[in-house]
Amino acid sequence: MAALSFATRARSGAARTGRLVTPHGVLDTPAFFPVGTYGAVRGLTPEELRQVGVQGVLANTYHLHLRPGEETVRKLGGLHGFMGWDGPMLTDSGGYQLYSLDLSERSEEGVRFRSPIDGSERFLSPETAIGIQEALGADLIVQLDEFEPIADRVDEARVRQMLERTLRWGERCQRAKQRSDQWLFGIVQGGGSEKLRRESAARTRALGFDAFAIGGLGVGESPERRWDLLDAALEPLPDEAPHYLMGLGTPDDLVAAVARGVDLFDCVIPTRHGRHGWVFTDRGPLNLRNARFREDVSPIEEDCPCPVCTRFSRAYLRHLIVTEEALGARLSSLHNLAFYMRLLARARDAITGGAFDGWSREWRAQYAA
Amino acid sequence: MAALSFATRARSGAARTGRLVTPHGVLDTPAFFPVGTYGAVRGLTPEELRQVGVQGVLANTYHLHLRPGEETVRKLGGLHGFMGWDGPMLTDSGGYQLYSLDLSERSEEGVRFRSPIDGSERFLSPETAIGIQEALGADLIVQLDEFEPIADRVDEARVRQMLERTLRWGERCQRAKQRSDQWLFGIVQGGGSEKLRRESAARTRALGFDAFAIGGLGVGESPERRWDLLDAALEPLPDEAPHYLMGLGTPDDLVAAVARGVDLFDCVIPTRHGRHGWVFTDRGPLNLRNARFREDVSPIEEDCPCPVCTRFSRAYLRHLIVTEEALGARLSSLHNLAFYMRLLARARDAITGGAFDGWSREWRAQYAA
Repeated sequence: MAALSFATRARSGAARTGRLVTPHGVLDTPAFFPVGTYGAVRGLTPEELRQVGVQGVLANTYHLHLRPGEETVRKLGGLHGFMGWDGPMLTDSGGYQLYSLDLSERSEEGVRFRSPIDGSERFLSPETAIGIQEALGADLIVQLDEFEPIADRVDEARVRQMLERTLRWGERCQRAKQRSDQWLFGIVQGGGSEKLRRESAARTRALGFDAFAIGGLGVGESPERRWDLLDAALEPLPDEAPHYLMGLGTPDDLVAAVARGVDLFDCVIPTRHGRHGWVFTDRGPLNLRNARFREDVSPIEEDCPCPVCTRFSRAYLRHLIVTEEALGARLSSLHNLAFYMRLLARARDAITGGAFDGWSREWRAQYAA
Repeated sequence: MAALSFATRARSGAARTGRLVTPHGVLDTPAFFPVGTYGAVRGLTPEELRQVGVQGVLANTYHLHLRPGEETVRKLGGLHGFMGWDGPMLTDSGGYQLYSLDLSERSEEGVRFRSPIDGSERFLSPETAIGIQEALGADLIVQLDEFEPIADRVDEARVRQMLERTLRWGERCQRAKQRSDQWLFGIVQGGGSEKLRRESAARTRALGFDAFAIGGLGVGESPERRWDLLDAALEPLPDEAPHYLMGLGTPDDLVAAVARGVDLFDCVIPTRHGRHGWVFTDRGPLNLRNARFREDVSPIEEDCPCPVCTRFSRAYLRHLIVTEEALGARLSSLHNLAFYMRLLARARDAITGGAFDGWSREWRAQYAA
């Protein structure tokens, strides 16, 4: 009997809603994973995440490999036991942090880097990326891939090299994988070229992964290009497997991507924006630092049922953010996660009702107003 | 009918337990007020404070005067409405921050200083200290006083000057006070001299305050001197009024002061130590950064019923502190507050049972071991 499964339950245009079953519970898709870099979602407890409807959490392989180390996490019961989160979990491969921080020396073999913590030499290869993720024990794991930001305007020959290497590394990850209770995501790359995106998707599909991620978006391309590139990447992928858009995005990014058939998301935006005093509402984001909230006794969002909006005023939250009192970052992040969860719940309902297009047009008009 | 009252219910030696009734509920004494500098106890919600047994919260007049300003707090429902804490509250006078940061120019009239936020000129006098505290609306407020750290070995003539000024300022505070639903604390000073401590206490008593605070301790004197000075200050005070030891202390400070007849405490230690990874147990404090906790799956304290010890391991908390993930400071602070609250609850029980001396000797031996 398979420990993991995915089934679509309803469609509305290209949008779909389904259930991703994991050894640690079920995700209703489209689903959003908040980012728990060090095995905690920035100041929040597992209990609070549950309370606002979070179903799954992403943790960063790179950071946890450095501290406390995957063997320590394994001994402490894997990520689930370590952080006290009993729901579905996802880990990334660790490559993204290395490329974005430019800490690494890449070769066909893998990525060599020095730990910024203690200067020790480390090596991340397709095989070690899988080994680390197996020790961490998330339900969903991803292959090691290679890419560079589209904004850097790398030439097509270089994009093709990275695409080919990502495919070879994908195969090595498949061979290295030992646990049967984790699903491995292949990653579609292809930079800013629709042709290469399509080719990458078709050839990644041919490798027969459990599920598929689209990487290298949201790192420099224009919003218009983004959706064409996403469409090109999604089109060749198997309909019956989950589609995961890595690292995106804003609330309107989520709605736009769901419309195209994306099932899974992760992003730092709700928590990072929250820390800086940006909070989301159906009428667009608010910057709590704005002086107009100084004596505003209303909640962030009038009809929001979250534990922040039912207890605290904009004026108090503004004060906490302005004075850099830790409770401000915590409460703003919690509201933002509640907002993301409610947004996707409404998207799922609209899909189930066969009315996603109308709902999303209405929601987007209100959000942009 | 008086909005506030205090009654002792049981004694054990000089230790006493009682009830301080305020317009926002009852404090069982001895009671400890965590410090909510900006109207929040460092990353914690009112709900969490309640959950670990916190009965009252102190907020800093100086910080709230600067941001968001007492008139804003008043418009937003006073401190209780502003921060969503419906229990008893205490504010300080604002003088302590000015003296300890050496930001001020003092005269008989009051204290002139520049706002470090916007450079504007401000003036804190006995009258404005009361005006600000009436706008903030805590249940318990304190007079403006003057002192310098004992460690600075100021001469007796200077200590006497400050003692006399504190008495004059105390009278001015009494005259300035308009609200009848707040209790005003007179403050005993007298530096490192038992004689001056006794004189200060007797003359502060003669002014007829609702309640009495002992200030200027825990700022440089040796621990042995501290208790002699405290005894000298307490002895002339009226038995029927609450005795508040300002700004102290460690868990063993609390037990030592309760033994001498102190009813109220405030201190940053549980939250500040928590932020730095120090957590309290009945067997003494632990530094979570210590490598021996790396794979320690036990809770901070085995039989602690707090929401941290029932959910998280030392290994996980250590990891959060070491990686500076905000959840670490939050959970360590919450455990420390739970520890302080349980400690005082046990002290109250021991007093009620007439066995404080034996209990405290046993507890101290265990704590020091």
